[in-house]
Amino acid sequence: MYEGLLFVVSGPSGAGKGTICKRLKDKLNIDLSVSITTREPRPGEVEGVSYYYVSKDEFTKVLDEGGFLEYALVFGNYYGTPKESVMQSLKKGRDVVLEIDIQGAMQIRKTSPDAVFIFILPPSMSELRKRITGRGSETEDAINMRLGKALKEVSYIDKYDYCVVNGELNEAVERVAAIIKAEHSRVSEDIYDLIKMYKEELPC
Amino acid sequence: MYEGLLFVVSGPSGAGKGTICKRLKDKLNIDLSVSITTREPRPGEVEGVSYYYVSKDEFTKVLDEGGFLEYALVFGNYYGTPKESVMQSLKKGRDVVLEIDIQGAMQIRKTSPDAVFIFILPPSMSELRKRITGRGSETEDAINMRLGKALKEVSYIDKYDYCVVNGELNEAVERVAAIIKAEHSRVSEDIYDLIKMYKEELPC
Repeated sequence: MYEGLLFVVSGPSGAGKGTICKRLKDKLNIDLSVSITTREPRPGEVEGVSYYYVSKDEFTKVLDEGGFLEYALVFGNYYGTPKESVMQSLKKGRDVVLEIDIQGAMQIRKTSPDAVFIFILPPSMSELRKRITGRGSETEDAINMRLGKALKEVSYIDKYDYCVVNGELNEAVERVAAIIKAEHSRVSEDIYDLIKMYKEELPC
Repeated sequence: MYEGLLFVVSGPSGAGKGTICKRLKDKLNIDLSVSITTREPRPGEVEGVSYYYVSKDEFTKVLDEGGFLEYALVFGNYYGTPKESVMQSLKKGRDVVLEIDIQGAMQIRKTSPDAVFIFILPPSMSELRKRITGRGSETEDAINMRLGKALKEVSYIDKYDYCVVNGELNEAVERVAAIIKAEHSRVSEDIYDLIKMYKEELPC
């Protein structure tokens, strides 16, 4: 009762979901889940902030213990959301944002059907190509593979509640922030407690 | 396609839905529908802004011509939402807010199932009594009748998408504004046009 809400933010690689989530964390009082991965750290990434970096064996151990809310294999690397920390935040009444891949999001839909699903879209495929190229860390083949994957991923959009086009970053952040605020006003089971209170109060 | 969205704001008399809607009109670029009523104007109300004031015969004429999106009989007076002006605004891509009674809202649910339904709640019944008493225009019997009606109305809340408790006015306005913004990011039929655009664009 009166737990925090779980928000899943996903979208194609390069759509800007990571940047949006970082801005949300600065702007709102939310918890951003830190995933566990077997991928190597990229320059500038920080252990425990960007990801927890583990070996494949360590990842498999957590998986076998049922310690992931979702996990996915993306371009040969494993990524997983640790269940325990998310559950603790929600129980404390804090909202949690998961920035995850579409495979992972589809798992969350099954395990946490009350979660709110937000898809981040690039304004166009040519803009997506520009952003991926701008990272400078990818070969031409890798870029084309990412673009092809992005197009397939976009077809999952009807499994999401909201979609936000990330053309102008501030506007996109404002939109996701509005979604988080609005979802707290959604009519849910909790409302019956309030109605009960009104009924007990009258005659007042 | 790409029409404006229709928002229905209702709640018990005295919950503050009128004040919230006026603030929304000042804050956002929305159209606030002006209802037609057979009730006498209250002090301070303005023809064409608060309501259009008509005789019972004039009201019946519009009703017979199918000119209302919804109408209701409330405490012996008729209130109706003129269909034409709402439709024109939506077609221009403008959002329309209807501040209407629960009876009317239930009609809109049938005629416009895509509308977004927002219920405004007072923070408590004793606060609602205070607000109704504060108007100074009601007898003790009328106040008790309104409170009894409010309690019945609250049980319709599960027919609404959102509920906003109007304790602190600015906060309530912000919440409704967030709902309006968020609903524009909802995944709907329109999204397939965007996906089609992406597909036509690749290879880019």
